[in-house]
Amino acid sequence: MSRYWSPLVSQLQPYVPGEQPKMNRLVKLNTNENPYGPSPRVLEAIRAQLDDRLRLYPDPESDELRSVIARYYDVVPEQVFVGNGSDEVLAHIFQGLLKQEQPILFPDITYSFYPVYCGLYGVESRVVPLTDEFALDPEDYLVPNGGIIFPNPNAPTGRALTRAEVERIVAGNPDSVVVVDEAYVDFGAESAVTLVDRYPNLLVCQTLSKARSLAGLRVGLAIGHADLIEGLTRVKNSFNSYPMDRLAQAGAIAAFEDEDWFNETRHKVIAERERVSAELASMDFEVLPSSANFVFARHREWGGSEIAARLREQGIIVRHFDRPRIADFLRITIGTAADNDELLQALRTLAD
Amino acid sequence: MSRYWSPLVSQLQPYVPGEQPKMNRLVKLNTNENPYGPSPRVLEAIRAQLDDRLRLYPDPESDELRSVIARYYDVVPEQVFVGNGSDEVLAHIFQGLLKQEQPILFPDITYSFYPVYCGLYGVESRVVPLTDEFALDPEDYLVPNGGIIFPNPNAPTGRALTRAEVERIVAGNPDSVVVVDEAYVDFGAESAVTLVDRYPNLLVCQTLSKARSLAGLRVGLAIGHADLIEGLTRVKNSFNSYPMDRLAQAGAIAAFEDEDWFNETRHKVIAERERVSAELASMDFEVLPSSANFVFARHREWGGSEIAARLREQGIIVRHFDRPRIADFLRITIGTAADNDELLQALRTLAD
Repeated sequence: MSRYWSPLVSQLQPYVPGEQPKMNRLVKLNTNENPYGPSPRVLEAIRAQLDDRLRLYPDPESDELRSVIARYYDVVPEQVFVGNGSDEVLAHIFQGLLKQEQPILFPDITYSFYPVYCGLYGVESRVVPLTDEFALDPEDYLVPNGGIIFPNPNAPTGRALTRAEVERIVAGNPDSVVVVDEAYVDFGAESAVTLVDRYPNLLVCQTLSKARSLAGLRVGLAIGHADLIEGLTRVKNSFNSYPMDRLAQAGAIAAFEDEDWFNETRHKVIAERERVSAELASMDFEVLPSSANFVFARHREWGGSEIAARLREQGIIVRHFDRPRIADFLRITIGTAADNDELLQALRTLAD
Repeated sequence: MSRYWSPLVSQLQPYVPGEQPKMNRLVKLNTNENPYGPSPRVLEAIRAQLDDRLRLYPDPESDELRSVIARYYDVVPEQVFVGNGSDEVLAHIFQGLLKQEQPILFPDITYSFYPVYCGLYGVESRVVPLTDEFALDPEDYLVPNGGIIFPNPNAPTGRALTRAEVERIVAGNPDSVVVVDEAYVDFGAESAVTLVDRYPNLLVCQTLSKARSLAGLRVGLAIGHADLIEGLTRVKNSFNSYPMDRLAQAGAIAAFEDEDWFNETRHKVIAERERVSAELASMDFEVLPSSANFVFARHREWGGSEIAARLREQGIIVRHFDRPRIADFLRITIGTAADNDELLQALRTLAD
């Protein structure tokens, strides 16, 4: 607390990211990173940028990257926005599109950064409880609102809506922006990107941090009607003209160009997720059906924080949220087969 | 304009950065980039990061980079804030420290992003005219205010205050945050960093884009009392937990570790600036005394936009601001000796 802070600052409840431990030899299953590295073509593309050109500002509008993404998703570049990680993209969305007269809606159990953005920009919100099965019911979102945001698949539950269910929400709210945060979509959910040409109120947000293995590079994107993108661009150009450095732009382009790597690695993660889910179920865990690169599970006897603590003693870190309704759950990132074996073995030991 | 925008968005007057032309073979003297590339150690440090670790999130607090900067400036890491370019750092400063009940003060002729931030965050401001010689008079800032920000050296004028003059403003405003934006300080002005331990209201902002030749990497920083840094950190953690990617953190650390490269290149720029200033003066230009890597000059006969247009015909781009008081001036970045020779030769041709 300082008398020099803006009045807003002392009221902020900043987001708390998952731990980034500085020790090695941990099995790190706590922040939903991809267990496989990025495409070698990404590394090569960045390496090719490492010269005197770093003295020059990057392209402020990331035109080439936006063109590559547009081609990939069969839209035009004017429908694509990019930012320094999807967290930055989401921040601009809250300020530029979701700050309205009426409160916005999002689930009670969801990405915990949403209420933080509301605090930062003074956005009013109303949380909509998930069902008893931790599912998002589209009907709950057909009420007056200033905007809607939810992840699909949802986090930390991993449960996904079908595209038709997403469309029901979008079509039922023609006067509001509906933001579908598809950070984990490539692990098995249906993207709503194919709907953007039909709904001017739909904005789809994605990241290169998960299925494209580039959490360390910080690249996020949004796709929607050109008017929505123009609004975000106006905010971006009032905040930071050059949010994407030269290396991030080059690496992101290469990531979209190596479709084989993308498919191979994400399918390995999906296969491991199914194996881990089945194994956990056989050990008396209730595992929510996941379309993401993590599972959300609770044991029928042991508490979530107890299991997390005992796993940590064995060098395995998973994420536990000490919050209403989900305090018994653990969110476990899918690692390599070896990581997952270590996790499962440790859990078996706990049972002894 | 879209009905889906937040009411704020249509009122924004976004910043317009200097052109980043996509053609080659231009003499680019319009955005104050360093004519020399970054230290080879920067490139090497980034290259050493190019592997599977890019799948992992970066250190959210950039601890190692902040420690290196702290050591360099003889402060503690808790006094150092870093961001994705100094524009992002400035944005957080406006929202987190300068949004107060009373209007903030900045010069009428200064970095044109300041009024843009005011628009983005609803910060009231009052501009303080520079003197007739385009100098900032510290006495003008000893009036009630909600905060003060100015570049030192100022941009686009290039004129610097002495450290004693800066201290007069800081000491005379114990109830306000005074932000000294030292983007260009290493080209010949006195930094106020040595004052931060004496003044809890002083915040010094710097960038690696200019004297450290890393405009393409996007790294900025702020140094001040730990309470000010904590306020900025709270804003940052409510906006984007991971603003600095792995490559930017590694490259920035290496940039601070290669003092020889830094000194050699900036002194070459300074020497060229003095040569260009003298040559321009000999061609009937009035050249303001510059402590930056650019000069701000007007010709006694020709208009600024006319000269800019004629230089462009010869493949040389400089920056012209079509604004009151400075419409006759050009801001000319100092390039390599060869760039500067081309500029001077082109100007001589105009005189014929």
